[in-house]
Amino acid sequence: MQTAVSSLHEAAALPQPYLLFLGDTREPNYAKTAYGLRDWARERCVGEFACEDVGVSAGLPFLTPEHARMAGARAMVIGVANPGGHIPNAWIPLLLQALEAGLDLIGGMHMRLSDIDTLRNAARALGRRLIDVREPPRNLPIASGIRRTGKRLLTVGTDCALGKKYTALTLARAFQVRGVDADFRASGQTGILIAGAGIPMDAVIADFAAGAAEMLSPDADPCHWDVIEGQGSLSHPAYAGVSLALLHGSQPDVVVVCHEHGRDHVLGYPHYALPSLEDTVELALTLGSRTNPDIRCAGISLNTAKLEADAAYRAINALSDRLGMPVADPVRGGESFDALVSACLAKQAE
Amino acid sequence: MQTAVSSLHEAAALPQPYLLFLGDTREPNYAKTAYGLRDWARERCVGEFACEDVGVSAGLPFLTPEHARMAGARAMVIGVANPGGHIPNAWIPLLLQALEAGLDLIGGMHMRLSDIDTLRNAARALGRRLIDVREPPRNLPIASGIRRTGKRLLTVGTDCALGKKYTALTLARAFQVRGVDADFRASGQTGILIAGAGIPMDAVIADFAAGAAEMLSPDADPCHWDVIEGQGSLSHPAYAGVSLALLHGSQPDVVVVCHEHGRDHVLGYPHYALPSLEDTVELALTLGSRTNPDIRCAGISLNTAKLEADAAYRAINALSDRLGMPVADPVRGGESFDALVSACLAKQAE
Repeated sequence: MQTAVSSLHEAAALPQPYLLFLGDTREPNYAKTAYGLRDWARERCVGEFACEDVGVSAGLPFLTPEHARMAGARAMVIGVANPGGHIPNAWIPLLLQALEAGLDLIGGMHMRLSDIDTLRNAARALGRRLIDVREPPRNLPIASGIRRTGKRLLTVGTDCALGKKYTALTLARAFQVRGVDADFRASGQTGILIAGAGIPMDAVIADFAAGAAEMLSPDADPCHWDVIEGQGSLSHPAYAGVSLALLHGSQPDVVVVCHEHGRDHVLGYPHYALPSLEDTVELALTLGSRTNPDIRCAGISLNTAKLEADAAYRAINALSDRLGMPVADPVRGGESFDALVSACLAKQAE
Repeated sequence: MQTAVSSLHEAAALPQPYLLFLGDTREPNYAKTAYGLRDWARERCVGEFACEDVGVSAGLPFLTPEHARMAGARAMVIGVANPGGHIPNAWIPLLLQALEAGLDLIGGMHMRLSDIDTLRNAARALGRRLIDVREPPRNLPIASGIRRTGKRLLTVGTDCALGKKYTALTLARAFQVRGVDADFRASGQTGILIAGAGIPMDAVIADFAAGAAEMLSPDADPCHWDVIEGQGSLSHPAYAGVSLALLHGSQPDVVVVCHEHGRDHVLGYPHYALPSLEDTVELALTLGSRTNPDIRCAGISLNTAKLEADAAYRAINALSDRLGMPVADPVRGGESFDALVSACLAKQAE
């Protein structure tokens, strides 16, 4: 499977390839990070490792850290998340085993690897790194607002958790399939693990957020596309500031607005109705034009996971008719998705 | 002189009253913090202290830390800022003298007091605190978006550094003069020193910025006004995210848009024209209505410091005619400022 990333941001690049660690997890929903890495960065995952009583698998070869190291692995990634984000005691001996085998450890859980004395001491003694992908780079700049070379696409959402990362990954891959030089740029933890680089926008100090977004998609060849993972929503009562900083700093030429069919309220905020797609498109273009006056909306990415195929395509077509622009569900692909990809690239040469 | 602050936010309250420290500063422009404290928190400043070769004064009694402690002082505030924000070696003996006299130290410079070994060790040995007002409170919440009781006013700018803090301070004081129960709420370093409390919005982790703004103006009596110091600008290429988080979390009933007469480009960003006042008002109301649908703009605070009095009043009147709303320069006061204050309070009972 082709990777969505062809070049890494040096400053924040992670040691690769990975050995995926599944802990003692028995609930597949908690293994989403491992599954995401398998689906989007398969060639950079040499295998998986876990406690004896694990109940899930990413379907990769089971390798001990020693064998993984011999197969080229440079880091073991914690590919599961428990509710609460803690690291159970039962995992510690296996994490130590990885350090002793010569692997760095990469985590993105709420509990930091470096807050565990045993791991910190072992890593120091062995000269290994404990990397927390929730930690932004140091010395982020204040945004300059100066236009950068190259093309940029940003996924913008009506809400959190409805497909902005997945949409960016599929678009980056579709661009590459069409022979377009494109990179996926990750702005959240799972995306960073998949890309092997990126900046966790939600963890940046507010004054530096737009500067971090500028750093995330640096100057590039005029024909090159950065496809940037969006965060939050410009209408979210808690996260709109992050979304606006990412929009301003990304200076996108193209936005694709992501929405979930049928979602009518902000997730976890039952007293906040979602804005309409019309209003969301208008707001993104109004605000985005501040740092890129040529910004345009290429279309809508509609998450139809809760619909049967027939109903999904009806919803996609109805929305496309209503808005007069391409609408597609990247998971379903098909002609509508091809049309969305074409619309994204349509004015590239302008 | 009456204080603009009548109650403090417990979680972030500073030890008071203050002794103001002027270091060895010879340039009045670097002593703005001390002057601001003298002008806005005079009754909480027992005196000033400095190196022998100081060249500026806030006009307060010169007191040694020992005498200041006897006069009730609880902390010495570094009331000057050098370019670069460092703390010269010449200051250290006097800072130690304050700690030994029983005063905490409060700083807001780029260099942190606690990064200086001598001070850190002395403070620990003496049981004194080194307080950096650039440090936000720990354990900030994610914004809930839930409406709070009480009335709120936020100053919103077309740019940075043109009078948002000063406008909020003068409005809070004018509200109090009219018998309205009002607090100034500080969102930046100097404002925090003046108020004795507040949250440095620019230093908060992006995900928590709107939550910090919610914490800054908590539930209050229905007739109480929080007058909140704005930050940045919704159109600023670097800081708009902070401004939007502050707007969403503040849930203002009223915004007053602050502008400097004649400023036509973003300070330090010569390639960014300032938005018009009409667009700025519209953007603030559009975005602010997300968390408070009843938001309205009471008028404009126009900084006319670079104009003679006649020209200033002509500019104020012309702008008021153009926009059809009250316009005033709070520094000049007068009838136009009274009209702005009335417009802020006009719909309070609705």
